[in-house]
Amino acid sequence: MEHTLLKINKARLLDTLKVSSSIGTSENGGLNRLALSESDKKMRDTYIEWLKEAGLEVRVDDFGNIYGRRKGKRDEAPSVAFGSHLDTQPCGGKYDGILGVLTGLEVIRVLNENDIETEYPLEIVNFTNEEGARFAPPMLGSGGITGDFTKDFIYNTQDDEGISYEEALKSTGYMGYSQNRLSNVKNFVELHIEQGPILHRENKTIGVVQGIQGIDWMTVKVVGKTNHAGPTPMEDRLDALVAASKMVVKVNEITNEITGLKTTVGKMDVKPNVTNVIPGEVEFTIDIRHEDNDLRSHAIERLKEQLSAIALMSKVELTITTDWQSETTWFADDVKQAIREAADKYGYSSMDLFSGPGHDAKYMAGIANTGMIFVPSVDGISHNEQELTLDEDIEKGANVLLYVIQKLAGAK
Amino acid sequence: MEHTLLKINKARLLDTLKVSSSIGTSENGGLNRLALSESDKKMRDTYIEWLKEAGLEVRVDDFGNIYGRRKGKRDEAPSVAFGSHLDTQPCGGKYDGILGVLTGLEVIRVLNENDIETEYPLEIVNFTNEEGARFAPPMLGSGGITGDFTKDFIYNTQDDEGISYEEALKSTGYMGYSQNRLSNVKNFVELHIEQGPILHRENKTIGVVQGIQGIDWMTVKVVGKTNHAGPTPMEDRLDALVAASKMVVKVNEITNEITGLKTTVGKMDVKPNVTNVIPGEVEFTIDIRHEDNDLRSHAIERLKEQLSAIALMSKVELTITTDWQSETTWFADDVKQAIREAADKYGYSSMDLFSGPGHDAKYMAGIANTGMIFVPSVDGISHNEQELTLDEDIEKGANVLLYVIQKLAGAK
Repeated sequence: MEHTLLKINKARLLDTLKVSSSIGTSENGGLNRLALSESDKKMRDTYIEWLKEAGLEVRVDDFGNIYGRRKGKRDEAPSVAFGSHLDTQPCGGKYDGILGVLTGLEVIRVLNENDIETEYPLEIVNFTNEEGARFAPPMLGSGGITGDFTKDFIYNTQDDEGISYEEALKSTGYMGYSQNRLSNVKNFVELHIEQGPILHRENKTIGVVQGIQGIDWMTVKVVGKTNHAGPTPMEDRLDALVAASKMVVKVNEITNEITGLKTTVGKMDVKPNVTNVIPGEVEFTIDIRHEDNDLRSHAIERLKEQLSAIALMSKVELTITTDWQSETTWFADDVKQAIREAADKYGYSSMDLFSGPGHDAKYMAGIANTGMIFVPSVDGISHNEQELTLDEDIEKGANVLLYVIQKLAGAK
Repeated sequence: MEHTLLKINKARLLDTLKVSSSIGTSENGGLNRLALSESDKKMRDTYIEWLKEAGLEVRVDDFGNIYGRRKGKRDEAPSVAFGSHLDTQPCGGKYDGILGVLTGLEVIRVLNENDIETEYPLEIVNFTNEEGARFAPPMLGSGGITGDFTKDFIYNTQDDEGISYEEALKSTGYMGYSQNRLSNVKNFVELHIEQGPILHRENKTIGVVQGIQGIDWMTVKVVGKTNHAGPTPMEDRLDALVAASKMVVKVNEITNEITGLKTTVGKMDVKPNVTNVIPGEVEFTIDIRHEDNDLRSHAIERLKEQLSAIALMSKVELTITTDWQSETTWFADDVKQAIREAADKYGYSSMDLFSGPGHDAKYMAGIANTGMIFVPSVDGISHNEQELTLDEDIEKGANVLLYVIQKLAGAK
């Protein structure tokens, strides 16, 4: 590799981030910048100014995704794309996907001021509605261009007030053209906060993301018999909550059997939910994650057996429904290697890890060699106004991105 | 005892019950006769006609309790009172407290037609708002005359529409006088359906109620840490629901250590209750019952220790609050003995048991030698339109009540 070991301009990057932090600021110092809201529109407008100032060719596609293109020496060759999303949760933080977009812009600025050309064209992307906080499910902008969702499906999703994605695109002026969609992509690189405690706890700066863990969501329904707490002898009871509680403990314990398995019962509803009435029905969810699809399937089968055994012993009826499944996404070797190499060159500590949450990179992996750079989240806090990534870690992450983009795009 | 072995008139009693079942009939063939509602007023008006037809001196007190008095030979002596309540749950059954009032009326009719005098005067009582379904808490009419609740407290209770007990008394015309309250009582006897499965399951007809089980209600709050299901490693979690589930299992298991102990977790609320978020807070209730106050206290202490141990192991915060306590009520020997004797004389099977739910007899036990006769509930179902007590069991219960009243009141 022939390019020099450039560094980003930390002060400029933090200034740019500061502007973002001032658009849609929430009461407690975080951000409330829902996709295609007034504040998101203001952020987009500002962002497009920056893209233009950086000499990029700006375009918007029919999902509202914004691209800034920098010509390559071989401009017909597939591009190297990078970016993330500028939208946030309603009580979100200032870093999340935002860092991925703004460090990308800083990379462009550094390449510009150093007159660095690349073999392959560059595309910096801001995807619409990554959070899924306004329009569910998440990652509609990226999933739209990769074909993971149909245009009809995306356009018809509605927010809580019944406004559709399509209407929101039109009313904000971000309804672009389908011919503007990103295509012919060689690589996609996304820098993102970890949203977990591992880098911070392990005292590492750069996460070389191996992929995004596969997830299964299930709903478990336990039916016993509603009865009065006073007269009903213990031995006559068919208590759905006692049975469900044993199941929750088992769902937790199974993670001791399989290394790396994560299970969560996040939601539980009890009926009729009255102090002196034995619960007749309990419904709870299971979120189960493991990067090894076979191990995850095996864990689910094992869990079903164990929950059935509890139901049998407790004489309650059990129904387990699969609500959603997502296979593990594996990231590309060339990107992972470039990230590791960058960390080494700059002398930053790094480690391999998996992403628990989904990201735009998940869908992009279907159309390009894709990878992610994680930077530390203090205490693993995210989707929260307390979210924090330290300035020096932002700087280091941006330097790694700068190196990776140069490497993948063939900088001279 | 010198009185003859009289029997009640089954056909007449069932006819009377049929009239009651036609006042406030609910869609699915039960009753919706909330205290001091239009249908309760209609029932009361009809009932007062019956009392007058039976030659009783009728009066209403300042809680709306209705009394019918039959003179005793020693009319200044303390009375023998019996009865229960005519109000129901919103989707209640046709038997519940109603049987206690209507079998009492049948007792009066039989004494009348057999010209039987008693040494002590008789008082048949219909208590207001036993169910507590319109005005909470339950048993306000009986608790008012025994001093368990103040008049102010009772008058100011409100239904869901903001109508006070006092207003409801006035608007139905059932605001009577404080000097009409029941006082100078020797015994109180209440016939009631069991509301539990024991008599039915044991194939016994008459329950000789030993008392009403003491109850403690507690709220348990478990605080862990809300976090995302994706990135948070299992070993870093402070999952309030996993800890709470272990506690629910323990609350159930402790009943194996102490015979006769009943525990119920009826209500559980999880926060934030989202599929992919580790619950940060869980609140659940414990309903704990045992007739032995010391054993119940011991069980509660033991439970607190065990829940604290789980909290410590799970690194979650635990707060246990006592919401309500009610000591066990023990019924009087003379009444229990008379009930057992009656069952023997008529050749009915009987057994001793405890009441789980509260009854007007609970408060009456504070001012008179009190007891209860239970008749079987098919499958233990109550507070439900499916509630059923068989005609022959109603007849047998009424005969026992007839005998007990004669015995306690000194019939000639």
